Amino acid sequence: MRVWCESANPDKRVGLRLRLPFHEDAKAKNVVTRWSRFGVDPKDSALHSLIQTHKLEVVHLHVHEGETFSEADLDQTLDLLVSCLEIFPKVEVLNLGGGWAYLFHLQKPEAQRVWNLVNKTITSINNQRQQLVRLVIEPGMLLTMMAGYLVAEVKAADDHPSGHRIVVLDTSAWNLMFWAPRPAVAQIPFREGPMFVHDLAGCTCYETDYFCLNEKMARIEVGDRVILNASGAYTSSVARSLHGLPIPKEFVIRDNRLCLVE
Amino acid sequence: MRVWCESANPDKRVGLRLRLPFHEDAKAKNVVTRWSRFGVDPKDSALHSLIQTHKLEVVHLHVHEGETFSEADLDQTLDLLVSCLEIFPKVEVLNLGGGWAYLFHLQKPEAQRVWNLVNKTITSINNQRQQLVRLVIEPGMLLTMMAGYLVAEVKAADDHPSGHRIVVLDTSAWNLMFWAPRPAVAQIPFREGPMFVHDLAGCTCYETDYFCLNEKMARIEVGDRVILNASGAYTSSVARSLHGLPIPKEFVIRDNRLCLVE
Repeated sequence: MRVWCESANPDKRVGLRLRLPFHEDAKAKNVVTRWSRFGVDPKDSALHSLIQTHKLEVVHLHVHEGETFSEADLDQTLDLLVSCLEIFPKVEVLNLGGGWAYLFHLQKPEAQRVWNLVNKTITSINNQRQQLVRLVIEPGMLLTMMAGYLVAEVKAADDHPSGHRIVVLDTSAWNLMFWAPRPAVAQIPFREGPMFVHDLAGCTCYETDYFCLNEKMARIEVGDRVILNASGAYTSSVARSLHGLPIPKEFVIRDNRLCLVE
Repeated sequence: MRVWCESANPDKRVGLRLRLPFHEDAKAKNVVTRWSRFGVDPKDSALHSLIQTHKLEVVHLHVHEGETFSEADLDQTLDLLVSCLEIFPKVEVLNLGGGWAYLFHLQKPEAQRVWNLVNKTITSINNQRQQLVRLVIEPGMLLTMMAGYLVAEVKAADDHPSGHRIVVLDTSAWNLMFWAPRPAVAQIPFREGPMFVHDLAGCTCYETDYFCLNEKMARIEVGDRVILNASGAYTSSVARSLHGLPIPKEFVIRDNRLCLVE
């Protein structure tokens, strides 16, 4: 930031990414990772002397506190942001960043409570200000990850001592899907009859290469197809190629036709 | 295996990968992953009827129980293998598979105890048999991973509220080094004076993109170089490209000269 301030003709209206403590998760409990490695400490005196010296106006605050797992997580972040508004009174935009994908998993009432809390906080902020603060959120993964489907073919299906059926697909979860297990949402064909507990594995020799565990599905056999959801963003863009396995081809639906993405 | 037995003229001398319970780690505690998804259960009656029907001779046993973290881990595996030799008396080769890289981290006496245990077990087996059993191990990662070094340049170095210096390198641990943190083994230049605690981070916006934490090193500044070890096998072959970052170029030393690997 110092380098930027000392560059020729920097814009005096600046945005700051704030470094706030993490939510109460594994990262927060670790002394080293308790604070994000990104952004500035809003109470840092060196920051404030830079702002004074260069007559900067902080008009934009941005936070990204990792994944929002609950209403309590967000409550903590919003409280901190409200106190930051007292430190930076000229803020015009509050950007809550990303990390909203987990809301997809939350039971609906909790997701609703999260958005109610955002709404309540911004309303309360704006009731006390002449110039309204604009709220920005970045639900990139929430919107785009859910939009993709992975179609896989079954290469093996066996009964396992655990009592589950272990199904090996023709692609790899370890290569494609790092962040979260992906549930199966459809199977072709769907066989009438009793349901079985299936574990869907990928085709690498990596032991924990699983798409999902404990899925109750109609009995799966070799040659069947399984459709997994949440395969949009953060799939091919962060894919690996253990064993040199190719990344699956990607298609989009355009004018009701499947078009290969080159 | 049934498919293979029923194929034309299969070899009657076969090797089996055994499915034994995992060592006492997170996978072992999970009911679903307690048993490997690979290999056969040595007590499976369907296996033994296949062996009888097709007059198979089991001459090779293979296990891969994940990473061997201690002498106790291995003791459990060897005990199970010895009892498997009673089930399959014609075995000529016992293959303990891979998973030895952790021994690199063990204090030397423990690593020595691990190899002593292997030696004692195979000697005791062979003292009771006419035809000697041959022992195979696959220390692929242990040998080849340690052979590689990553040379990175420092793009940023700042003091952090944790009291550590956070150093950002020009490549990404998250992209390159999935399985384990890699210690820094050298720094260029080495500045005389007090040592500082450094955290070496990668250049993605992924929060936990760290090569290593809590490294006591001479003070690092922008433009310095840092050498990390254990960057041989399982680095570029399982690399990802978050943000489209390129995989570092690879060189081998041949006839005392650096040669680019194409």
